[in-house]
Amino acid sequence: MRTLWQNCHVATMAQGNYSTIEQAAIVSNAGLIEWIGAQADVPSVEAERVVDLGGAWVTPGLIDCHTHAVFGGNRSGEFEQRLQGVSYAEIAANGGGIASTVRATRAASEDALLASARQRVQALLRDGVTTLEIKSGYGLDLVNERKMLRVARRLGEELPVTVRATCLAAHALPPEYAGRADAYIDLVCEQMLPALASEGLIDAVDAFCEHLAFSPAQVERVFIKARELGLPVKLHAEQLSSLHGSSLAARYQALSADHLEFMTEDDAIAMAKAGTVAVLLPGAFYFLRETQLPPLDALRRHGVKIALSSDLNPGTSPVLSLRLMLNMGCTLLRMTPEEALAGVTVHAATALGLGASHGTLEVGKVADFVAWQIDRPADLAYWLGGDLPKRVVRLGHEISH
Amino acid sequence: MRTLWQNCHVATMAQGNYSTIEQAAIVSNAGLIEWIGAQADVPSVEAERVVDLGGAWVTPGLIDCHTHAVFGGNRSGEFEQRLQGVSYAEIAANGGGIASTVRATRAASEDALLASARQRVQALLRDGVTTLEIKSGYGLDLVNERKMLRVARRLGEELPVTVRATCLAAHALPPEYAGRADAYIDLVCEQMLPALASEGLIDAVDAFCEHLAFSPAQVERVFIKARELGLPVKLHAEQLSSLHGSSLAARYQALSADHLEFMTEDDAIAMAKAGTVAVLLPGAFYFLRETQLPPLDALRRHGVKIALSSDLNPGTSPVLSLRLMLNMGCTLLRMTPEEALAGVTVHAATALGLGASHGTLEVGKVADFVAWQIDRPADLAYWLGGDLPKRVVRLGHEISH
Ligand SMILES: [Zn+2]
Ligand SMILES: [Zn+2]
Repeated sequence: MRTLWQNCHVATMAQGNYSTIEQAAIVSNAGLIEWIGAQADVPSVEAERVVDLGGAWVTPGLIDCHTHAVFGGNRSGEFEQRLQGVSYAEIAANGGGIASTVRATRAASEDALLASARQRVQALLRDGVTTLEIKSGYGLDLVNERKMLRVARRLGEELPVTVRATCLAAHALPPEYAGRADAYIDLVCEQMLPALASEGLIDAVDAFCEHLAFSPAQVERVFIKARELGLPVKLHAEQLSSLHGSSLAARYQALSADHLEFMTEDDAIAMAKAGTVAVLLPGAFYFLRETQLPPLDALRRHGVKIALSSDLNPGTSPVLSLRLMLNMGCTLLRMTPEEALAGVTVHAATALGLGASHGTLEVGKVADFVAWQIDRPADLAYWLGGDLPKRVVRLGHEISH
Repeated sequence: MRTLWQNCHVATMAQGNYSTIEQAAIVSNAGLIEWIGAQADVPSVEAERVVDLGGAWVTPGLIDCHTHAVFGGNRSGEFEQRLQGVSYAEIAANGGGIASTVRATRAASEDALLASARQRVQALLRDGVTTLEIKSGYGLDLVNERKMLRVARRLGEELPVTVRATCLAAHALPPEYAGRADAYIDLVCEQMLPALASEGLIDAVDAFCEHLAFSPAQVERVFIKARELGLPVKLHAEQLSSLHGSSLAARYQALSADHLEFMTEDDAIAMAKAGTVAVLLPGAFYFLRETQLPPLDALRRHGVKIALSSDLNPGTSPVLSLRLMLNMGCTLLRMTPEEALAGVTVHAATALGLGASHGTLEVGKVADFVAWQIDRPADLAYWLGGDLPKRVVRLGHEISH
């Protein structure tokens, strides 16, 4: 249905800037943007529907490009214990930490995982999210990684959101492989990735490169297998120390390297050259009370594209609002509101391999957008929490949450 | 209408602790809690209505005890300028800062102020807030302070929330009194407070004690006038430096002293003795990137009651979610989730002089409560942003937002 959306201002986010059009209109048709420009120039096409947006500011639908939204249980009990003075070591000794999420995820049925994830994803959607990445990584064996990825697919079928599913089997060492990380990587490469890829459950392959997870050499084996399978890669890199995982990711033309607090200037140069997006995760930075900031100036200087994401996960970033990450990106990481908005639209799309179809409001792209009742685009990063009045359009159709 | 609310767990928050009752029920009648206890012990009263809460966790309705929710304009433009590298001095030289909010507030009609504040208050209410304080303080003359306080009253009439209106005429020096702070305090004490009090617009009197605002001697004049008028006092104190405003507040049996980053142990002792609540404002702490933490251990050691609030205001805390303050109270200020929840219920009620009627779930108190779909009370502080599924009851009636 051809629809004319009028009486609005638009931040198209083309080229990563606001690229605003005031007094604008949009024509959507068959789920795509057919025309966008000044209200005065609306072409004389026959619109089957005309929608007055009441002077709203329209942005691309928000894209959350790094989440672990599917998991069993939650870790609020640990959160409370830590604040009561219990040490990490004690919590780990009692089976806490990521091990508890792996246990709870393995123990949960696919339907139970779907039900709990649905609530969290719906919270994200209420903020204007129309595209979402979801990673596996709490199953850590074929059966349970498959279960997580199937839940990701089902969320994309049930809810009005485009879901990209990322296999993060190399997230942590499962307890049954304690002390045998290389053997676990064998399992990932020889059995899990080929099987899950052949089932159509994987859009990208991710890994966690860190002393407490996997070495660059182990990550590289995963990347080589992904390349064999024709799958793009991503990487959790330089969160706690500098292993140059981001340079490794760039060598494999990764879609993104994520976290990056400890990355170096050379890593930034490599990423810029490869077009690998830097995904910054201020929720985890905040929640863990980190002090090492990702090197924003180096990323800017070398022209690395910067995305922002919730990193929604139960251990280090129990974030249910992507818009809150805009504020944290500005307040904590010192991004500008314009950079922050680009980070959840155009650059987030690129971080998912969707740059050609998503992330900006331009002719031929999907008609995913949000009409916000705000005074100026910076309001999206300025207000802290709460729900801003808005209308959300996905594939040319207004959706309600 | 007598209503039986059953199949729930309750955190009554009596004595500032969770004081949980699992498998609980509540009987409300005529807006009050008539009975609360274990489901198995429900008295054989005739309930006209029975509501199944589906295993939810019930807490008192949240109380936001320190807001500046009524104001003209917003300061997202300044927020963006600062992140683009414009200095505070340049912004102030261009008429920015609080001066711009005073101008916009004076220029706005009462109806326009109401409309913009309504949206912000509705955002707070969607988080489970049932009682809210609103301060004046951007009018800074009789006509405009009255306008703000009237908006506060009208919000309480229009929306399902109990509003307490606080006169903060001594918030900042208006431009027409530049260099004549004592003369402005004369105006506040001799004209503004008596007039606004006689019109029934004031529930409490507040002031800002700081080098860039008013001295302890000036604040004391305001307190003396408030006492004459029979009004309780509150104080913005020790946010940026230590002037011992909190001890001054305690000498006047203030309901609360708020901010308190630079308070001393002696201040804590004085507040404990006077029963003055410490209202901590982690939103402003976060937004201003402060590093001086309020002395939580001293407050605990001396038994000062601690409340948490949004401090919703356009310059230093554009916060639209009180639940987000629970997380920031824990993550940034290192409170426990239990302390944080007490800070937006029982102790917030005391900070508003409503301790006898609000803030806990006990027989005889108002039937204001929230039934949350969560696993345990700590979830309220753990999840960051987003909307948690809930049902909100005010004065015994379920309300929808
Ligand atoms: Zn992650
Ligand atoms: Zn304040």
